[in-house]
Amino acid sequence: MSTKLTGACIIGQSGGPTAVINASAYGVIKTALETPEITRVLGAAHGIKGVLDDKLYDMGQEDAYELSLLMNTPSSELGSCRYKIADPSKDDTDYKRILEIFKKYDVRYFFYNGGNDSMDTCNKISRYMAQVGYECRVMGVPKTIDNDLFGTDHCPGYGSAAKYIATSCMEVAKDACVYDSGQITIVEIMGRHAGWLAGAAALATHMGSGPDLVYLPEVDFNRDEFFAEVMNLYEKKGKVLVAVSEGIHYADGSFVSEAKTSSTDGFGHAQLGGLAVMLAEELKVRTGAKVRAIELSLLQRCAAHLASKTDLEEAFLAGKVAVESAVAGETGKMVAFVRETVDGAYACRTELIPLTSVANYEKKVPVAWINKDGNNVTQEFIDYALPLIQGEPERATEQSLPRYARLKKVLAE
Amino acid sequence: MSTKLTGACIIGQSGGPTAVINASAYGVIKTALETPEITRVLGAAHGIKGVLDDKLYDMGQEDAYELSLLMNTPSSELGSCRYKIADPSKDDTDYKRILEIFKKYDVRYFFYNGGNDSMDTCNKISRYMAQVGYECRVMGVPKTIDNDLFGTDHCPGYGSAAKYIATSCMEVAKDACVYDSGQITIVEIMGRHAGWLAGAAALATHMGSGPDLVYLPEVDFNRDEFFAEVMNLYEKKGKVLVAVSEGIHYADGSFVSEAKTSSTDGFGHAQLGGLAVMLAEELKVRTGAKVRAIELSLLQRCAAHLASKTDLEEAFLAGKVAVESAVAGETGKMVAFVRETVDGAYACRTELIPLTSVANYEKKVPVAWINKDGNNVTQEFIDYALPLIQGEPERATEQSLPRYARLKKVLAE
Repeated sequence: MSTKLTGACIIGQSGGPTAVINASAYGVIKTALETPEITRVLGAAHGIKGVLDDKLYDMGQEDAYELSLLMNTPSSELGSCRYKIADPSKDDTDYKRILEIFKKYDVRYFFYNGGNDSMDTCNKISRYMAQVGYECRVMGVPKTIDNDLFGTDHCPGYGSAAKYIATSCMEVAKDACVYDSGQITIVEIMGRHAGWLAGAAALATHMGSGPDLVYLPEVDFNRDEFFAEVMNLYEKKGKVLVAVSEGIHYADGSFVSEAKTSSTDGFGHAQLGGLAVMLAEELKVRTGAKVRAIELSLLQRCAAHLASKTDLEEAFLAGKVAVESAVAGETGKMVAFVRETVDGAYACRTELIPLTSVANYEKKVPVAWINKDGNNVTQEFIDYALPLIQGEPERATEQSLPRYARLKKVLAE
Repeated sequence: MSTKLTGACIIGQSGGPTAVINASAYGVIKTALETPEITRVLGAAHGIKGVLDDKLYDMGQEDAYELSLLMNTPSSELGSCRYKIADPSKDDTDYKRILEIFKKYDVRYFFYNGGNDSMDTCNKISRYMAQVGYECRVMGVPKTIDNDLFGTDHCPGYGSAAKYIATSCMEVAKDACVYDSGQITIVEIMGRHAGWLAGAAALATHMGSGPDLVYLPEVDFNRDEFFAEVMNLYEKKGKVLVAVSEGIHYADGSFVSEAKTSSTDGFGHAQLGGLAVMLAEELKVRTGAKVRAIELSLLQRCAAHLASKTDLEEAFLAGKVAVESAVAGETGKMVAFVRETVDGAYACRTELIPLTSVANYEKKVPVAWINKDGNNVTQEFIDYALPLIQGEPERATEQSLPRYARLKKVLAE
């Protein structure tokens, strides 16, 4: 461990929002504000772009109660970005600017709260600062509903999204079987390359009211088999509920939704959507049945009203541990979760893993957790996911609607 | 009031499900089971079709705890239908069959739980039974998320759907403003002819995080004005959140979504959907902005996890009052709600209104509650809707997921 380091810290949020990413930010901000070595807590507006633009909020000027409401406030309250930072060996313009800002505010701690791409950003900054000899401790705080971060048992954000998906599928399953006529319902769930979210739909079935079929991107999609499976069930039962991941693709790697896709996001990822509608249209033609497509869309990643208490507390913990570890001398690491069983019950402890080992890898659902037919998950998946959605957190309301944090966002001078 | 009438009762559910329609069914079933004059409580499978098909469940054989869980179980647990019963003066086949079944089980009380079309069914049966001299008391128990039933201040089901819409819009508003780039988001909300549901999106804005623009079907839709309003805001703010009712239509009455529509439901209503996607596509072309369409779809009508306690209790009350009133001698009526102010606070009492006055009329949002520009609701609407979404009911869970009623559904002999 290195020596005591005193200075300001920056917390930034990046990538797609989740229901609990602000809980991690609160974990960082609250802990940092209480830490003597940290002289000032700055929140970067829209992640690394806020650093580049010198747009930093002075978190010390916020009301403590309003800050605490970050626990119940979905999405990234400081603003997010999808800015892809260059490789410093090719173009170090951004890094020079970041160093300039770090020096301006005497920033000695940098906490970055995000997913795969954000850990890559974090890693590059960490290495650049070491290279130029500027002492600054850089820590990654994980978040992603996709749950695809390497090196951690699970990611903050996943449990709450999974709980929303499972609950919504239970409700839709009840609704979609109400008439005496036939009906096929297709629910489209997020997850570009990993099926963790789509698999969560099976938790609904586990509780007695959920999808009959679940399609994950870990298995190559076979159009003919898909239609045969749905139509076979439809003929038997009259009602079929199907959950599909937005990321399902053919054996050649092309997304099933691709025909519908024209634009890409800032990282060059294809923007998916409209898959359920496309499958529903084809099923309508093939069966003549009433077919309905439901896309959970943004709802699944911002449903703070249905957050998992376990997820929320772990999200806060990740932020807190990041600060404590950095102050203790750690740098270039991400906070990760290790699952433990204590007296037969789920427990979770943190560990630190090198950013270099996590950046840009994607963790997928093990093939052994998917059934032989490739149209559902196994009990292993249920056993994995169920502990992560547990508990109802207290949440502030006003007029029976959510009461979100109202931050002043005073720019640092 | 007429004399004491002893016999069996039938409860049926009809039309689109809601989050609390089972609470009304429970209000009927529980009260009927406790009423000495009612010798047997029968649940019709899929509404009036269950009567025609002689498919009736013996509710007396259900476990009391499981029945009580109907309070937290969304959708119509007995099954629903969209069966349009004929005019008895033109074709009395169905009525003869209903009479036959009523005689078979000595049914003297008929409770029908539904919306406009169901009250029409209820009214026709009531008049037929009177005409043929079969003593049977017929009561309508209102439900509809659309809130468009005539003669009642509001309908069971509306408050919970409104709460879901408002909460979801608050969450989406947080998510949809997270990036530093521009974004337009369109949320499509149910409501074929009335804007009560779409207007509920404005509750989110009232709480500080909601749509900028709200379009109701009570105002003729003007395509050019719509695009001008959205693009004007987009240029000013960079982020725009729009709520649209699925039922918006042009001055000639044609639905904006019509181009997308091919099929109709059992009552000949056009099946709407895909409107938000259509508007989003056009906005994308016009602005070049990132545009996202979100359709709340079935989620808004079955979200029991976010039910309003006020709505849930009133839904139960409607069922209970229907039974008590029928036993006291009433028939041919629907239970309606009258809003009262007690010590400055919202209160609600029931009254009975003739089925003939409610059947097939649709109650719309008063034009005075819509702003001059026709793109939002006024404070009067907020004051109307806000009391209806109040309170968090207790709800049974298992593994932090909903625990729904598990009924045996034993067919009556």
